Amino acid sequence: METTQTTTQQDSLLERLFAHGHLLKTGVDGVYGRGGEMHDIIEAVDNYITRFGRDGDTEVMMFPPVMSRASVMKNGYMSSFPHLLGSIHAFTGNQQAYGAMMEDINSCCEWGHHLSMSDVVLTPAACYPIYPTLTGNLPEFGRLIEVASYCFRHEPSQDPARMQSFRMHEFVRVGAPEVVQAWREGWIERAQQFLQNLGLTLHVTPANDPFFGAGGRLLKANQKDQGLKFELVVQINPNDQDQGTAVISCNYHQDHFTSKYEIMTHDGQLAHTSCIGFGVERIVLALLATHGMKSSEWPAEVRKELWP
Amino acid sequence: METTQTTTQQDSLLERLFAHGHLLKTGVDGVYGRGGEMHDIIEAVDNYITRFGRDGDTEVMMFPPVMSRASVMKNGYMSSFPHLLGSIHAFTGNQQAYGAMMEDINSCCEWGHHLSMSDVVLTPAACYPIYPTLTGNLPEFGRLIEVASYCFRHEPSQDPARMQSFRMHEFVRVGAPEVVQAWREGWIERAQQFLQNLGLTLHVTPANDPFFGAGGRLLKANQKDQGLKFELVVQINPNDQDQGTAVISCNYHQDHFTSKYEIMTHDGQLAHTSCIGFGVERIVLALLATHGMKSSEWPAEVRKELWP
Repeated sequence: METTQTTTQQDSLLERLFAHGHLLKTGVDGVYGRGGEMHDIIEAVDNYITRFGRDGDTEVMMFPPVMSRASVMKNGYMSSFPHLLGSIHAFTGNQQAYGAMMEDINSCCEWGHHLSMSDVVLTPAACYPIYPTLTGNLPEFGRLIEVASYCFRHEPSQDPARMQSFRMHEFVRVGAPEVVQAWREGWIERAQQFLQNLGLTLHVTPANDPFFGAGGRLLKANQKDQGLKFELVVQINPNDQDQGTAVISCNYHQDHFTSKYEIMTHDGQLAHTSCIGFGVERIVLALLATHGMKSSEWPAEVRKELWP
Repeated sequence: METTQTTTQQDSLLERLFAHGHLLKTGVDGVYGRGGEMHDIIEAVDNYITRFGRDGDTEVMMFPPVMSRASVMKNGYMSSFPHLLGSIHAFTGNQQAYGAMMEDINSCCEWGHHLSMSDVVLTPAACYPIYPTLTGNLPEFGRLIEVASYCFRHEPSQDPARMQSFRMHEFVRVGAPEVVQAWREGWIERAQQFLQNLGLTLHVTPANDPFFGAGGRLLKANQKDQGLKFELVVQINPNDQDQGTAVISCNYHQDHFTSKYEIMTHDGQLAHTSCIGFGVERIVLALLATHGMKSSEWPAEVRKELWP
């Protein structure tokens, strides 16, 4: 829905997204509805990722936005990124407990202690739910899996490129170390091509994940030194002083997940994994910031890629 | 992904869905991944709902799977359905608090008190986030909104028709009472046609929502007596003794939401709302149970509706 409000380049990107009806306010920073045109663009980018990235032997697995709590305890997410995890709690009491809770709700603000931890958390990364399904011996050439879901990270922000709830679309390669490394190398070029096809200007940079606290500093440095993660960065807020926004990232996990879930090559060695993740909303924001707020006026060659 | 496991009609529907690779285990009852064929069917049903239900003046709003906590407190969901709500909590402490939490995590099971309530909850019904956006005066003939999202209800179950995390796709009519009532009446026939087009046998029945506790009994009875909710019910588990599963439901909210959010007709009267909600996975389960586990072998006329 277009509105009659006018905005200028001086307005923040978020204000322009609201004014054009692309994002809808919900009262919470980083949690937004999507208007009809925005939804169409998101779907188009999502489908383009599939067309561009799916190979002949790609297996598809899709997961809901929640996953097993036991998995994020086991895979290390809770200890490394406790500040980002969304933990799901629920009321499981009887009529009497309900009365006590409603009394607290109506008379004060703090009522979380009336709820219990459930067995689920919000999925922090689209590929996490696949690893527990891979336990055992892989086929000879490993597996290649496409997965996408809504992800959650608890970091309320007014930067539209840092939503709390957003879509991540990934391809994950699982197999012998040299197979996984070769696949990952191939994506350094391939991912740049993806963004260039969409008329986006980017640079590639080594990166690290936002590990928590004092101990996290060492983990960040190690990850960067070993070249385990690279990101494709696009300038989304041209007037900002920022370093740009990562719209695609590629992680080489080595045996981080395979050791925890006993995922083995066909000949019984510990397998490796690597994933390439596309931040769907971030790619859409880069398109809107680069080509303008009206997708009907984007360059023909970009529109042809997205709506073939 | 098809597996080589063989299953019989005597196996439970859930076992057959696992064996055919349609659903993937996650370790949590009611939270499942979807295999490639299942994902294709879900997308096809979702798109069919759009084609079937969208009228010329339908506005599209899409929301992520989380929404404002303040909204579910204000709209009455927390007090009416406290046993179903998923509340999102997060760690917001410093290095010292982190140490204390990790100690509890490693030595015992109860560590929820280290987390704080966030500003968000899991969306319980797809249409809930739209009402706060509608405050003010409507256009002369009201508005018609299409909305879809993953929804969450905390009811762990091994019945595949009662997932904790599932897709709901809705159309919502907002306007003068007589406009909303006429729209709702029209859907009684139209929703039956939708299911008949897919080769499904159904019946229509008055219904109520699962209000909590002693006070809830009265609300259930009132809702049913006033004919505010009807459901379209399909037999998904043919061998079960159950009453069938509601795959589409239509709620007439009267002024429940409009009074809370001051949503007015163009001439300043309190508006009414009604919604028709499609349970996407439930419709897919009905298709699989009725036409068989392989979508390639479904009746040609059903395939033509879904993949035109």
